Amino acid sequence: MHWPLGTFGFGGDYNPEQWPAEIWAEDIDLMGKAGVSMVSVGIFSWAEVEPRPGEFDFGWFDQVMDNLANAGIAVSLATMTASPPPWLARLHPETLPQKADGTRLWPGARQAYCPSSPIYRDHAARLVEQVASRYHDHPALSLWHINNEYGCHTRACYCDVSAAAFRTWLTQRYKEIGTLNEAWSTKFWSQRYDSFDEILPPRTAPTFSNPTQQLDFARFSSDTLLECMTLERDVIRRYSPAPVTTNHVPLARTLDLFAWSEQVDVVSYDSYPDPFDKNSHILAGLSYDVIRSTRNGQPWILMEQAPSAVNWRQRNAIKAAGQMRLWSWQAIAHGADAVLYFQWRQSQGGAEKFHSAMVPHAGPDSRTFREVSELGEELKQHSAIVGTRSQNEVALILDWDNWWALELDSHPSTELTQIDALLTHYTPLFEANIGCDVVKPDADLSAYKLVVVPNLYLVKEAANLTEYVRTGGHLLMSFFSGIVDGNDRVYLGGYPAPFRELLGLTIPEFRPLDAEIPVEILGRPATGTLWSEEIVTETAVPKGSFEFGPALTRNEFGEGVAWYLGTRLNPEAMRAVVDEVTAGAAVQPVLSGLPDGVQAARRGDYLILLNHNTNEVEIRKA
Amino acid sequence: MHWPLGTFGFGGDYNPEQWPAEIWAEDIDLMGKAGVSMVSVGIFSWAEVEPRPGEFDFGWFDQVMDNLANAGIAVSLATMTASPPPWLARLHPETLPQKADGTRLWPGARQAYCPSSPIYRDHAARLVEQVASRYHDHPALSLWHINNEYGCHTRACYCDVSAAAFRTWLTQRYKEIGTLNEAWSTKFWSQRYDSFDEILPPRTAPTFSNPTQQLDFARFSSDTLLECMTLERDVIRRYSPAPVTTNHVPLARTLDLFAWSEQVDVVSYDSYPDPFDKNSHILAGLSYDVIRSTRNGQPWILMEQAPSAVNWRQRNAIKAAGQMRLWSWQAIAHGADAVLYFQWRQSQGGAEKFHSAMVPHAGPDSRTFREVSELGEELKQHSAIVGTRSQNEVALILDWDNWWALELDSHPSTELTQIDALLTHYTPLFEANIGCDVVKPDADLSAYKLVVVPNLYLVKEAANLTEYVRTGGHLLMSFFSGIVDGNDRVYLGGYPAPFRELLGLTIPEFRPLDAEIPVEILGRPATGTLWSEEIVTETAVPKGSFEFGPALTRNEFGEGVAWYLGTRLNPEAMRAVVDEVTAGAAVQPVLSGLPDGVQAARRGDYLILLNHNTNEVEIRKA
Amino acid sequence: MHWPLGTFGFGGDYNPEQWPAEIWAEDIDLMGKAGVSMVSVGIFSWAEVEPRPGEFDFGWFDQVMDNLANAGIAVSLATMTASPPPWLARLHPETLPQKADGTRLWPGARQAYCPSSPIYRDHAARLVEQVASRYHDHPALSLWHINNEYGCHTRACYCDVSAAAFRTWLTQRYKEIGTLNEAWSTKFWSQRYDSFDEILPPRTAPTFSNPTQQLDFARFSSDTLLECMTLERDVIRRYSPAPVTTNHVPLARTLDLFAWSEQVDVVSYDSYPDPFDKNSHILAGLSYDVIRSTRNGQPWILMEQAPSAVNWRQRNAIKAAGQMRLWSWQAIAHGADAVLYFQWRQSQGGAEKFHSAMVPHAGPDSRTFREVSELGEELKQHSAIVGTRSQNEVALILDWDNWWALELDSHPSTELTQIDALLTHYTPLFEANIGCDVVKPDADLSAYKLVVVPNLYLVKEAANLTEYVRTGGHLLMSFFSGIVDGNDRVYLGGYPAPFRELLGLTIPEFRPLDAEIPVEILGRPATGTLWSEEIVTETAVPKGSFEFGPALTRNEFGEGVAWYLGTRLNPEAMRAVVDEVTAGAAVQPVLSGLPDGVQAARRGDYLILLNHNTNEVEIRKA
Repeated sequence: MHWPLGTFGFGGDYNPEQWPAEIWAEDIDLMGKAGVSMVSVGIFSWAEVEPRPGEFDFGWFDQVMDNLANAGIAVSLATMTASPPPWLARLHPETLPQKADGTRLWPGARQAYCPSSPIYRDHAARLVEQVASRYHDHPALSLWHINNEYGCHTRACYCDVSAAAFRTWLTQRYKEIGTLNEAWSTKFWSQRYDSFDEILPPRTAPTFSNPTQQLDFARFSSDTLLECMTLERDVIRRYSPAPVTTNHVPLARTLDLFAWSEQVDVVSYDSYPDPFDKNSHILAGLSYDVIRSTRNGQPWILMEQAPSAVNWRQRNAIKAAGQMRLWSWQAIAHGADAVLYFQWRQSQGGAEKFHSAMVPHAGPDSRTFREVSELGEELKQHSAIVGTRSQNEVALILDWDNWWALELDSHPSTELTQIDALLTHYTPLFEANIGCDVVKPDADLSAYKLVVVPNLYLVKEAANLTEYVRTGGHLLMSFFSGIVDGNDRVYLGGYPAPFRELLGLTIPEFRPLDAEIPVEILGRPATGTLWSEEIVTETAVPKGSFEFGPALTRNEFGEGVAWYLGTRLNPEAMRAVVDEVTAGAAVQPVLSGLPDGVQAARRGDYLILLNHNTNEVEIRKA
Repeated sequence: MHWPLGTFGFGGDYNPEQWPAEIWAEDIDLMGKAGVSMVSVGIFSWAEVEPRPGEFDFGWFDQVMDNLANAGIAVSLATMTASPPPWLARLHPETLPQKADGTRLWPGARQAYCPSSPIYRDHAARLVEQVASRYHDHPALSLWHINNEYGCHTRACYCDVSAAAFRTWLTQRYKEIGTLNEAWSTKFWSQRYDSFDEILPPRTAPTFSNPTQQLDFARFSSDTLLECMTLERDVIRRYSPAPVTTNHVPLARTLDLFAWSEQVDVVSYDSYPDPFDKNSHILAGLSYDVIRSTRNGQPWILMEQAPSAVNWRQRNAIKAAGQMRLWSWQAIAHGADAVLYFQWRQSQGGAEKFHSAMVPHAGPDSRTFREVSELGEELKQHSAIVGTRSQNEVALILDWDNWWALELDSHPSTELTQIDALLTHYTPLFEANIGCDVVKPDADLSAYKLVVVPNLYLVKEAANLTEYVRTGGHLLMSFFSGIVDGNDRVYLGGYPAPFRELLGLTIPEFRPLDAEIPVEILGRPATGTLWSEEIVTETAVPKGSFEFGPALTRNEFGEGVAWYLGTRLNPEAMRAVVDEVTAGAAVQPVLSGLPDGVQAARRGDYLILLNHNTNEVEIRKA
Repeated sequence: MHWPLGTFGFGGDYNPEQWPAEIWAEDIDLMGKAGVSMVSVGIFSWAEVEPRPGEFDFGWFDQVMDNLANAGIAVSLATMTASPPPWLARLHPETLPQKADGTRLWPGARQAYCPSSPIYRDHAARLVEQVASRYHDHPALSLWHINNEYGCHTRACYCDVSAAAFRTWLTQRYKEIGTLNEAWSTKFWSQRYDSFDEILPPRTAPTFSNPTQQLDFARFSSDTLLECMTLERDVIRRYSPAPVTTNHVPLARTLDLFAWSEQVDVVSYDSYPDPFDKNSHILAGLSYDVIRSTRNGQPWILMEQAPSAVNWRQRNAIKAAGQMRLWSWQAIAHGADAVLYFQWRQSQGGAEKFHSAMVPHAGPDSRTFREVSELGEELKQHSAIVGTRSQNEVALILDWDNWWALELDSHPSTELTQIDALLTHYTPLFEANIGCDVVKPDADLSAYKLVVVPNLYLVKEAANLTEYVRTGGHLLMSFFSGIVDGNDRVYLGGYPAPFRELLGLTIPEFRPLDAEIPVEILGRPATGTLWSEEIVTETAVPKGSFEFGPALTRNEFGEGVAWYLGTRLNPEAMRAVVDEVTAGAAVQPVLSGLPDGVQAARRGDYLILLNHNTNEVEIRKA
C-alpha cells in the first residue's frame, strides 16, 4: 500500500492520543463513512512515545496502526520529531533556538529546537530509528512523513551553536577567508574577516547588516533544516524503501523548495487560503504551481487544509458552503493526488482547538462532516485523474536566492517583495486561464512558448534565459532584474548588464515612487506604482512610456522576442501587457470564452472547471 | 479614629518627604481650608525610612504623623513596600522582575521587584513590622494601606525564581503531573510533562503557548501578588486591629478582585477616566460597580483620582470646570465613602510632576485648589450619605477566570475583549439608569430580576445560572459563552453545551466577521460586527436574524426566560434589546424620563442626579 | 595645503580599497574631469590597515595618498576608527554596545562599539597614533577627519562598562550623593541613592524612568562620545598642527553640537534631505544655520551629501535634474565652503551599493557624473565666495539640554518635539527670506534685532533673555517655555516663573489638545493644535485669543518687547505672527518682493538666489 494509492488520498492528520481509546473505534467507523483512504499519524507523538529520555512506549501506537491497517486506511507515518518533549529543553537548554536579538524561544508551544543542535539531532535520529525499525513493514505504512512544517515558526536560529554551524557551512562554501571577504564585499564598513572564526550570524546590529552575510545566512538556514530532514530520511532508508515526504507551510521565503524537493520522493503542501481575502485562490493556485513544479510536474499531496476556519489569524473566517469542495478541486486541478485536512477530530484543548476539523466539536452531525463526506464520495468517482499531469506553455521564473536577496534591506525601495512580484505576473495568466509552471532560471525552458521573469534581481548566470530567446523563445521581464550576482554584487556597466543585449536597452538610474504616476501602455492610459526607471532603448522598441521616457519595450533578439516592463502596472494594464505578449507567443489558454472567475485546468484528458464566483454561471460547449 | 470616619474621607496622597519641613505647617493649614479629613502617607517612603539595609530612620515620619494627629486628620498609613530602594537591586539583582522575553526590568522607576522573590518578601515584611509596631497605636492611624497599586506595572514575572514558584503553585493545584497534563491538553503539540520540574512560565515561544499554561500563569500571578499582600496584612494583624485596604488600579485583567477583596476590610480604587473620551464616565461607573460588588455592596474608598490632568497619557486632558466635582459625586453615587486624590501637593520633580495635585505648582490661588476646597466643603454637608448602600435588580456576570481565558490567543476572533464585552452590555443599562451589581457566576442571584452574561467563554459550572432561570429569573447571554471548562477545554456536544437546554438552541459553528453585516433585531434593521454564528433553535424563539438564520432568541425555561444574542450589535439596537429584556423582567430604573446624559442613583434614601452633559438640563419633579 | 583650500572644497568620500588598483588611475583621471579638489579617505579602512591586532599594513594606503598628492587633490584624512574590525569583538565582546533592554548590538554592520570601553579607546588611540605619525607631513594632508558620524547608530550604550562610566561622570558632576538625590528628585517613588555605586543607566524599567536620570544620561552620552573624539584629536595634536574636524549626521538630539564644535577647528555636516519631502530644503536650511552657528558663523564643510538617491529610506527618491546643484548652492548660501559627497565611486557590494555616487554603477557616461562635473566647474568660477560670512538680525534659540528634557516622557503632551518646535518658528522666517542664526540661551544677543524662543521648556537661567529685552531687544517666545531648571525641576510660583515678568503674564494650567481648535490671531481666524493653555495677562496685551482667554500676547518690557504664543498655529497664522513681530523689530529680509519659493541669501558681497520651485520664475532688479 505504498504511495501512490491508485486512488485519491483523502483524509487528514489523525491524533488519537488526544482522545480516550473508547473513541478510536468510532473514529474508524466515521472514517469509513467519510471515505477516508489515508491519514497522517504521529506528528506530535514524541512526548507520548518517549516520555523520558530513552524510554519508549509504542504500545498504544501499535494499536492505532493496527486499527488503520484493519480498516484498509493508508498511513502517512510521521517521524514524530516535529516538537521535542519538555525534558529535552530541561536537560539541554542549549537546544532552544535564539532570535537575532538574543531572545531565547522557550518550550510551551512547538518547534522549540535549534536545527543546528547536535543534541536535538541525536535525539531525533534515535527516535526515527525506533519508529522506522518498528513500523517499516507494517501493513498500514504507505508513506514516511518526515517531521512537520520545517521552519514554520523557527525559521532560523542565531545561537552560539548555530553560529559555529554557520562558520562550518561558510568554510565549506568559500574554503578561503579571502574568497568570503570578496564575496561579502567586506572592504566596505571595515568588515574584513581575518579568519572564519570571527564570523557570526547576522545578529541585531547597530544598522543594516552586511547583505551577503544575510543572504548566506538565509541559504544556511534552509540548508540546515534540510540537513535535519535528510538525516531522518537516511535513517529511514536503512529500514524501509517506502517513499518519503515532508509537508511544507504556505509559500514562504524560509526554505528553497527546489532544493528540498530533490531530496524526497513526493512533495506535500499545507494550504491555508484566507476566505476573507477574495483573491486568495489566486495565491493558492500560484503556490500549487510552485509546489508541483519543484518536482517537474509530478503529482503532489495536499497534506493539510482546513475543513472550514483556522484559528491562528486575528479573525478566522469559515469556508462558506461549497468553498472547501471548490478549493479541494482547485488543488487537484493544479496537480494534487491527495486531499487531506488538519485534522481528523477537532481538539478539545490546546492551541488549535478552534481550528476546524473533519469531525468538529459538534460531532459528525454537522455541515463540515457532511461536506467532507460528500467530497470523499465524489473523489472516489474520479480516481482516473490520479497520476495524470498537465502540460503548460508558460513558465514563471522563481529562484529562492533571488527571494532572499530581493527582500534585503537598503534597496532603492524596500516595498518590492517576492510574493507580490510573482502575483503581479501570475494573476493575469491565471485570469486568462493560461496554465503555468514555475521554474528556476537555469531550468530547461525549451518546452515553453513564453517565459515570464518577475523582478529577478539576483541572477547567477544569464545565459539560459538569453539562449532561450535567441533560439526563438518569448520572454517578459520586469524591472530590477539582472542587478546582482550570486553574492549580491552589482553587475557593472549599466543595468541590467547581463540582460542589456537581450533586452536591447540600458537603465542608467532607478526612480522608486512614493505615489502612483500616469503611464501609457500599448496606447492606453494606465498607472504605475512602486517603481519607475530611466530606460534608454538601444535595439528595443518602446511600447509604453513614462512622462520621461519608455516604460515598456519589445526587443527582437535572435529568433525570439524579449519584452521589458519598468514599473508595476495597475491590474488592467498588466493584463493588457500579458494578453499582448501571450498572443505574440501564440500561447493558448486551457479554454477561452469563459465567464470571469471561472478557472479551467486540464489534467491528462480531464478538463476541470471551477467557478470561483459566489453566483452561478452557465457555460455552453462551443 | 479607625475607618470608617463617619464622614466622607476627603484628601489625598500626602508625600511631605518631597518638601522641606518649612512647608509642612502650610500643608496642615491648607488641608484645613480644603476640608481634608484623611490622607495617605508613606506610599513611597521606603528609601527614606530605610536608607541602608536594616537601618531605619522614622524620626521625620513621626513628625508627619503627629502633625496630622494634631490637626485631626485621619491617616491611611502605607506599609511603604510599594517600591524598594535602589540598594535592594544592587545587593540582590535576582529580585528584579523579568519579562516573558527575558528582559530584566531595572530600577529607576517604581515597582521593580519580583513578587515571588523571598528576598523582596523578607525585606518587605521586616519593614512592615517596623511600621506596624511603631504606629499601631498612633492617634492618627485610621487605616492600613498595604503596598500600592499591586500589579500596575509589573503584572507578572517570568524569572527563574518565579518559575520555581509557579511550579510549587501548580504542584499544589494539580498534585499529580498526570492531572496537569490532562488539564493542559499536553497531548497536543508533544507537550507532555514527565514531572513538575520541567514546567516553565509561558515565556516567549516560537508560536502560541499552551493556553492553559497561560491561564494558570495568570491565576498564579494574581495569587502571587495576593500572597505579598496577605503576608503584609498578617504582619500588621500581629500589632493592630485597624482595618486594612490596598488600592487597585483601574479595572484590569491582572488581579482577580473577587479573591482579593475577601482578604481586606475595605476596598480601595484608583480612578483615572480620560476627559478626552466622551464615554469615560460609563467605564468609570462600571468599574465602581465592580469594585463595590467585590465586597457585596460595602462602601469603598476612591483612593486616587486626579484633581485635573494626569501625566502618563500621550496627551493629557484637563478636567473642565466642574468635571472633577461631577466625577467625584459619581463615585459616591456608585458607593464610595471617600474621595481622595493623587496627590496633595504637585511634585517639583520626578516622573509625575505634571500630574495635577490638590495644591498645584501655581499654589492654592488656583482653579484646582478652589474646586477641591469647594468640594471638601460640600461633602461635609452630606455626611448622612456615608455608610448607605444601594439595592440593584440587575446583575452583570464577571469572572476573572473568564477574562484571562477570553483574551487568550488563537481564538475564532482575537478582537473580543473582556472590557468591551462588559461595556457593550453595561452601557444600555447605564443609559437607562438601571442600577447594576457585578457578580461572579456562582454568586447568589436570587435577589436579582435580571442577570446579564456577556461572552462568558469559560464556565466552571453552569448550574447556578441554569437554576436561577429555572426558578423564575430572566437572563440575557451573548455569544461565545459556555464554550470551555475551567481548564480551557471545550465542552463537547454542540456549543454552548452547558447552556443548550437553558437557551433552547445549539450553535454548530462560529462565524467571526471582518466587516459589519446587516441584522434584523426585534423587527428593526440593525448591524452586527465582530461575530456571527449559526444558531439552530430547539425550544428557543427567534427574535432577530442574520441573513442565514437566528441572531437573537428568547427561550422560556422553567419559570424564567433566557435570551441569547449571537453578534455584537450597534449601540441603538443593543439598547432596544436591553429595553425589551428589562421590560420583560419588570426591572425598574432608578428614575425614568430623565434627559439623555443625566445619571440617577440611589444610596439609602438619597437620590443623586448627575448631569454628564456639557449643557445644563432642567428636571422637574413628577 | 591645509584647510581652508582658498577654493571650494569639492569631492567626496574616496574608498579605493573597494576596488582593484587598476581602477585607481582612472579615479584620479575622472577626479580631474569632475573638478575634484578634496577627498576624504580612510573612513572605513581600519580592518584593512590593521588586519590583526597590532599588525599594520599601510602600504596600499601610502599609494592612495601619493596618487592624490600627485594630482594636487587635498585629503581630509580619516583616523579610521569609525568601525572596528571583527577581531575586536571576538577578542573583547565586552566592547559591543548594549541597548536599554539589554540587547547586545553585534558586528556585521558598523559602529558596533561601546564608547565608554577603555579597550575600544585604547585600540582606537593606537591606530590614530599610527596614522598621525605616518601621514602628519604627507603633502596631500589638508585636514584630519576624526572618526565618522559619531552617534549615528550607536547613540548610547547601557552596558555595565557604560554604567560604571556613568557613575564616574555623575560623581564628577554632583560630588555628593545628596546633591544628586536633590537634583534627581529621588524622594519620589522611593528612589533615594545611598551611594553613587547604586546608580545605573536608565535601562528598561517597569514604567517611566526618573526624568533627570534620563536627562543626565543624555548629557553623559554626548560627553562620552565627545571624549572619544578629543582623545583622538589629542593624539593627532602630538604629531600635527593641521586642522581637525568630525562630520555630524543630520540634526539630531544625540550630540550637543555647541559643545562639540568648540573642540574642533572646523565643523562638518552630512546632509540628506529627502527629495520626496517638498519642504526638506527648509529643514536643510535650518540645519545649516545650526551647524554654522555652532562656530559663530565660521564657514563649514558639507562633508557628505548624495549625488542623487540614498539607499536607507523605505523608498529612496532620486534628485531630479538640477536639484543636486540647487541644494549644493543652498549649503553654500548658508555658509558652506565645501561641497562633498558620499561617495566617489558607487560600491559594487555591501550595504550602501544603492546609494548614489559621483561615479555611478553606470560609469562616468551618466547624468549624475555630468551634473557633478558641471557643478565642479561652476564652483571654480566662484572661489571668491570662499571665506565670506553672513550677518543676521534674528537669532533662534536652541539648547541641547532643552532638547533632551523637552522630549522626555510623562509630559502634558508627548507630541512636542524639538525639531518640530524649531521648524514651526523657522519656516516663516525662511519663507520671508530673513536670515537667522541659531544660538544658545546664554549667547551674546546684542547684535540681534529679534530673538525667537521656541518651546524652551528647560531654562538654566533666564537673565540673558530678560536683559536682552530690557535693553531694547524684541523677543517671541512660545508655550511650555521656562518650566524647569537644569535638573528638570519645576520653577514654582506660576508658569513660566522665570519669564513671568518679562512676558507680563502667568499660566495657571496647561491644556494640551487632542484636536484642532479655533483661535483668533491678530484679528483673523486661525487654528491651534497640540497645545493650549490658560494665560492670565498682567502687563501683557492680548493680540489673539482662545475661546477661553488670550492665546497671543505682547508685553512692553524695559526698552524692548516680548511676545508670547500659547499654541501651535496653522502655518499661515504663524507667518502672520512672525511678519508682525519682525516688522515691529525692524528686521529686514535679505531681499523682498521675491516670488514664493525663491530663497535669497548673502555671503559677503554676494547675493545668492535659489529657486526651490519646479517651475522657472522671473526676477527683475528693483
